Amino acid sequence: MELRMDARALEVFLKRDFGQVAADFAVERADQQGVRVRLKVAERHLRPGGTVSGPSMFALADVAMYLAILSRIGPVALAVTTNCAIDFMRKPSAGYDLMAEARLLKLGRALAVGDAMIVSEGHAEPVARASLTYSIPPTRG
Amino acid sequence: MELRMDARALEVFLKRDFGQVAADFAVERADQQGVRVRLKVAERHLRPGGTVSGPSMFALADVAMYLAILSRIGPVALAVTTNCAIDFMRKPSAGYDLMAEARLLKLGRALAVGDAMIVSEGHAEPVARASLTYSIPPTRG
Amino acid sequence: MELRMDARALEVFLKRDFGQVAADFAVERADQQGVRVRLKVAERHLRPGGTVSGPSMFALADVAMYLAILSRIGPVALAVTTNCAIDFMRKPSAGYDLMAEARLLKLGRALAVGDAMIVSEGHAEPVARASLTYSIPPTRG
Amino acid sequence: MELRMDARALEVFLKRDFGQVAADFAVERADQQGVRVRLKVAERHLRPGGTVSGPSMFALADVAMYLAILSRIGPVALAVTTNCAIDFMRKPSAGYDLMAEARLLKLGRALAVGDAMIVSEGHAEPVARASLTYSIPPTRG
Repeated sequence: MELRMDARALEVFLKRDFGQVAADFAVERADQQGVRVRLKVAERHLRPGGTVSGPSMFALADVAMYLAILSRIGPVALAVTTNCAIDFMRKPSAGYDLMAEARLLKLGRALAVGDAMIVSEGHAEPVARASLTYSIPPTRG
Repeated sequence: MELRMDARALEVFLKRDFGQVAADFAVERADQQGVRVRLKVAERHLRPGGTVSGPSMFALADVAMYLAILSRIGPVALAVTTNCAIDFMRKPSAGYDLMAEARLLKLGRALAVGDAMIVSEGHAEPVARASLTYSIPPTRG
Repeated sequence: MELRMDARALEVFLKRDFGQVAADFAVERADQQGVRVRLKVAERHLRPGGTVSGPSMFALADVAMYLAILSRIGPVALAVTTNCAIDFMRKPSAGYDLMAEARLLKLGRALAVGDAMIVSEGHAEPVARASLTYSIPPTRG
Repeated sequence: MELRMDARALEVFLKRDFGQVAADFAVERADQQGVRVRLKVAERHLRPGGTVSGPSMFALADVAMYLAILSRIGPVALAVTTNCAIDFMRKPSAGYDLMAEARLLKLGRALAVGDAMIVSEGHAEPVARASLTYSIPPTRG
């Protein structure tokens, strides 16, 4: 499938349309395999004990899948998350950013389905794994 | 089942141990049926178009279930979310707080399972629904 | 919302279009609150130890939600399950049928979302709980 | 991680302890990457229209993950499914068996988490994807 937006185009889009949260994320890669997004872990993402909060990990999985969809259909769509199932498996390693690898498993007319694996940067063992469904509005370019 | 913490005790706990996010939430009720928690919707919870962000709704469901568990086992436990499945069903009504109603379906030795229904305050139709599993550490008081 | 099929109409439909599995189920109730479906537990639903198998409980939740949708939109649609998140919470009580209570939370143009609670007949504590999404084909009567 | 049971040992176990359903499945592979299980699609797995039923696909994902766990901890444990989130993405290709590839993402003391990808044999596009959690009883060999 053709790639309509690369990592740089996705970052520009994120900064323009999601200014509020864009500073949390960096798009590290976007290609046929999917999209790799970094959560620049800061104080505001932490819970007591120094672990990254669940909502921050949810946000990372959600934005990574959103960008994986946009990389294929372009910046015109207003896709919205309709479902997410997320497993939190390990405490993230303190002092490391989190990296999400999102891949599209289905890009249909109305629904896009994919999953995202989250690890602490440089670590192999998964911290969390999410599967997500997005609803894609009927009129897309 | 006995209630070990009421709405006021849960709020005090939240303010002390989760200072960072406690300002977002208010515990409206805690009883045998479960816990009712308000998300005081502010600019930082919104996405373009004025809708409450997915991560903010996830955070609301997560904290409501966490407090529902603590209301039963007391403030000693370090329960952690291991799984969440969330359906986003409707756009929240602009200008309204979100209310989550969380109920425990199982409180086992090692796992607690429950669900949370989220509505815009004063509205009947569900905005989102989440089911959550928490792992409860072996030594609890 | 208007009810287009009652319990009897749903059973007739089930027997005609799902002959293979219809014998497993009985529609006990269909009204504004949702649909109540019985799994007539037999040897073929059991796992070693006498517990009802996960796939049998999944099938019960799935058929109950399907019938809850049909009760509202009529027998014309070919709705298909797109997502299910199910929690297995307790071992069913040996020697009892399982009862699923399914309710629709959203009936949109393209997607229907609901949940189903499963108990052993006459017991209060939930055995399993599922949330399900169905895709509804564009042309419905 | 050491492999305690290979494909053949898993099949022998399945036939002995799950005689009722064992005939539906064949263990094609078991190694460090996970377990590959075939659903030998027969009339009883089909729905009107010739598609494999949701419960049959759930059963395939469930058994594949179960065997992936046993391949690591041996045949002694009585692991039970506590959670499954499954996305049905495409109609299986008529006349083909279904193949599930299950991998363990976490094998903890109390919980095992993994996912399973289901395809029609010889096809690349996923038919369904499931994430599953199993509870592992405290005393294991």
